[in-house]
Amino acid sequence: MRAGDLAAPYPTVELSTPVVEAARLMAAENLPGLIVVDNDRPSTILPGTQVLRLAVPEYCQDDPALARVIDEPSADVFLRGLGDRTVAESLPREQRELPVVHPRATVLEIAAVMARTRSPLVAVAEHHGPLLGAITLDALLDRVLAS
Amino acid sequence: MRAGDLAAPYPTVELSTPVVEAARLMAAENLPGLIVVDNDRPSTILPGTQVLRLAVPEYCQDDPALARVIDEPSADVFLRGLGDRTVAESLPREQRELPVVHPRATVLEIAAVMARTRSPLVAVAEHHGPLLGAITLDALLDRVLAS
Repeated sequence: MRAGDLAAPYPTVELSTPVVEAARLMAAENLPGLIVVDNDRPSTILPGTQVLRLAVPEYCQDDPALARVIDEPSADVFLRGLGDRTVAESLPREQRELPVVHPRATVLEIAAVMARTRSPLVAVAEHHGPLLGAITLDALLDRVLAS
Repeated sequence: MRAGDLAAPYPTVELSTPVVEAARLMAAENLPGLIVVDNDRPSTILPGTQVLRLAVPEYCQDDPALARVIDEPSADVFLRGLGDRTVAESLPREQRELPVVHPRATVLEIAAVMARTRSPLVAVAEHHGPLLGAITLDALLDRVLAS
């Protein structure tokens, strides 16, 4: 069993997608994260917790005390935090290892990439190739533990 | 809306639970991670990707090339990797910030904890108190974006 066999269709967003729309997609389809494509190629993969990070005002991220005193109706805080920024404008500056695997990647390789990048979602693509599909942690566990 | 209102029942494992059983629980119930309890108190919260890490042989974790050449039937690799170790025996040595919030925590505080600890799952408990429930990233997004 290789990544190509496990890859399943996965909804994608573009760099120009508003963050709030991307977050709604994630919530509506219970996705573990987002795949951002640029010309059909996986450009960024964001674990769900990192999408959340885009919505939390920066002054609250590392100061729980500050987050504690802000008790506005929650949707307001989030939606205002997100504003009309696009995914491209919200991405973290630092480049991390992208959780993308080759279609010939073994199950162990997929698992190692998920564990190392802390991403419950990996994209499947050939080097510089278009997105072929994605493998979620759920799907991987279901396959390797179903015995 | 506070953490106490959002907390929902969540299956837990004990320190003495075999890792393979914990992984199966996660797969069967599509959980985003595991809550390990010790005397009813949340002792560790493991995001799904870190549970996966317990199952990936150490020599493969940081060397994709090694993982690439191992192409055994996947379940075998995992189950042998897990062996009959318990959760307690498999936990990472380093102590990280535990994603636990007080029942009075605001939505923003919950989101900040999830983002900072990269955990799609937070436990709700009073200081040194028993586990009251858990909040998943899915549930949080559903609540804050449902408007």
